[in-house]
Amino acid sequence: MRIAVLSPISWRTPPRHYGPWESVVSLLTEELVRMGLDVTLFATGDSKTSGKLVAACQRPYSEDPSVNPKVAECLHISEVFERAAEFDLIHNHYDFLPLTYSALVDTPVLTTIHGFSSSSIMPVYRKYDARSHYVAISEADKSSELDYIATIHHGIDVAQFPFYEAAGEYLLFFGRIHADKGVHEAIQVAQRVGIKLVIAGIIQDQDYFATRVEPHIDGTTVEYLGSVGPDRRADVLGRALALLHLINFEEPFGLSMVESLACGTPVIAFARGSIPEIIRHGETGYIVEDIEHAVNAVAAVKSIDRSACHADVEQRFSHTRMARDYVDVYRKILNPGAGDDR
Amino acid sequence: MRIAVLSPISWRTPPRHYGPWESVVSLLTEELVRMGLDVTLFATGDSKTSGKLVAACQRPYSEDPSVNPKVAECLHISEVFERAAEFDLIHNHYDFLPLTYSALVDTPVLTTIHGFSSSSIMPVYRKYDARSHYVAISEADKSSELDYIATIHHGIDVAQFPFYEAAGEYLLFFGRIHADKGVHEAIQVAQRVGIKLVIAGIIQDQDYFATRVEPHIDGTTVEYLGSVGPDRRADVLGRALALLHLINFEEPFGLSMVESLACGTPVIAFARGSIPEIIRHGETGYIVEDIEHAVNAVAAVKSIDRSACHADVEQRFSHTRMARDYVDVYRKILNPGAGDDR
Repeated sequence: MRIAVLSPISWRTPPRHYGPWESVVSLLTEELVRMGLDVTLFATGDSKTSGKLVAACQRPYSEDPSVNPKVAECLHISEVFERAAEFDLIHNHYDFLPLTYSALVDTPVLTTIHGFSSSSIMPVYRKYDARSHYVAISEADKSSELDYIATIHHGIDVAQFPFYEAAGEYLLFFGRIHADKGVHEAIQVAQRVGIKLVIAGIIQDQDYFATRVEPHIDGTTVEYLGSVGPDRRADVLGRALALLHLINFEEPFGLSMVESLACGTPVIAFARGSIPEIIRHGETGYIVEDIEHAVNAVAAVKSIDRSACHADVEQRFSHTRMARDYVDVYRKILNPGAGDDR
Repeated sequence: MRIAVLSPISWRTPPRHYGPWESVVSLLTEELVRMGLDVTLFATGDSKTSGKLVAACQRPYSEDPSVNPKVAECLHISEVFERAAEFDLIHNHYDFLPLTYSALVDTPVLTTIHGFSSSSIMPVYRKYDARSHYVAISEADKSSELDYIATIHHGIDVAQFPFYEAAGEYLLFFGRIHADKGVHEAIQVAQRVGIKLVIAGIIQDQDYFATRVEPHIDGTTVEYLGSVGPDRRADVLGRALALLHLINFEEPFGLSMVESLACGTPVIAFARGSIPEIIRHGETGYIVEDIEHAVNAVAAVKSIDRSACHADVEQRFSHTRMARDYVDVYRKILNPGAGDDR
């Protein structure tokens, strides 16, 4: 099976630090290669893959200000479509723009919708709904206006997230510094329970950081680590008492929750977006309604069995499971007559 | 000959007020229809044409903030390529993005390059140089890195710009309010010669307007009319003593100069970009080096024969001439063996 995988070019694939879409693409691509598929990754020129790499854009536009994102993306996307005849299937992780090239080639196109940035992009997804194939990354992120061939939760490479048996001493915020992600809510909870909060992640909203986060950073009760790369990630996650994921938006999927659980650290999260699909309430963390409930959850969190958190990720959120699910979808598209009993 | 003309969707085609690319597209399209070609215009849904109109985007994104420009443009562009088999040729006026779809269809694509917004867009033009066809709008705007099938100066509908025989009493600035266009330089010249300056145009740079233009507006020595639509345009242009076009950039083509000349009003301009191709120094205006020379040129401008200005536009810058030139290029692309002696 000859598969072209179209990655974003905002960051390297895999990302050096931040870059959730590129991270998922890399894990999927490497596992597909391991499974024996003939995989060509379309990504930035500095990307790393055991498959074949094709790069129309040498450097990620979020890392290199000399790259014109609009120019880079249309050269990147058109490259895969101009070579469409070389592939049995194009797997698009680049949002809606590639769909507008898809009707010009015979190769089927599968799009993983990594979340809807705005309702204004729906017309593109609606237009290509009948002739294209969409995968949702959670039930919560599905649009009622679209048909989906499958829902496939993201997976992580569990080997990169070793299990930490002992419960840690600090609470953890891990993600983009942005109001959506509830950094300030995490600070409030930590202050209420009198436990240190460690914050890790890139600053996406500088104003929010300056007004709602930075004034609380003293290095003792609230510590900010900056962006934490792959080398320190497991240690920061695994040594925490609990991950606070008190988000203020309908998150399509929360990779940091899965990574935290893999290390054995339970998650306390608001019931938004995909969270009920990821956290098993009372088993791998607590799904709470408000700050008050979050405070109570911290008090109870030591009763969560950390090994159960790790086991749940191995069972439900491994990248090998994700890759197998995608190969099933590829087969379904390429052999539509075969039905489900393959 | 079945021609698809792809217009921008920033403004209506033709524009209500400002919109030079859409204006040229409209003039060309209407003349092609009159010449008997089978023309389909791809433009906003509120556009007007005597050809067939196809609109993937109902409203211009610069007039309707509810339109997502990136979504609208990819649906607009893909529409013409998805219908490519219906046309003998696609004439692209939408800059570089359509080129990245062009290799996926068999229909030849001709692109009029209306100017390079930045050197960062060159990689797209370079990539498609060998397989596509480019028209420059002036010799000055040609890139040495690209091959061009022709240089075709824009034309205007001279009937819309009646001749005003008598020299007017005021100097005129006509164009976008932006540092590139030299509004402040026009004010300096007018103040030096003690003649009233009338300013007409949309404010593109609000800061520049507030600091360099607005403080001089008193309604007597400097008057600002705002954006002047098609109904008042000829009157404002024709009643001027001279148009001051003291630009600070390499302008690919200056439509307002041609419109001014058509009304009989000579032009005083800096020797930048396409100006030496448009103004005949000493016959239809003066090409000057600096403010000092511009001041001297105003003193001399009454010696310019206004009817010579009008005649030069009729001969060199009519939309009928422009359309004939384009049809020649269409024939050259569609019958490459026929040579130039058709």
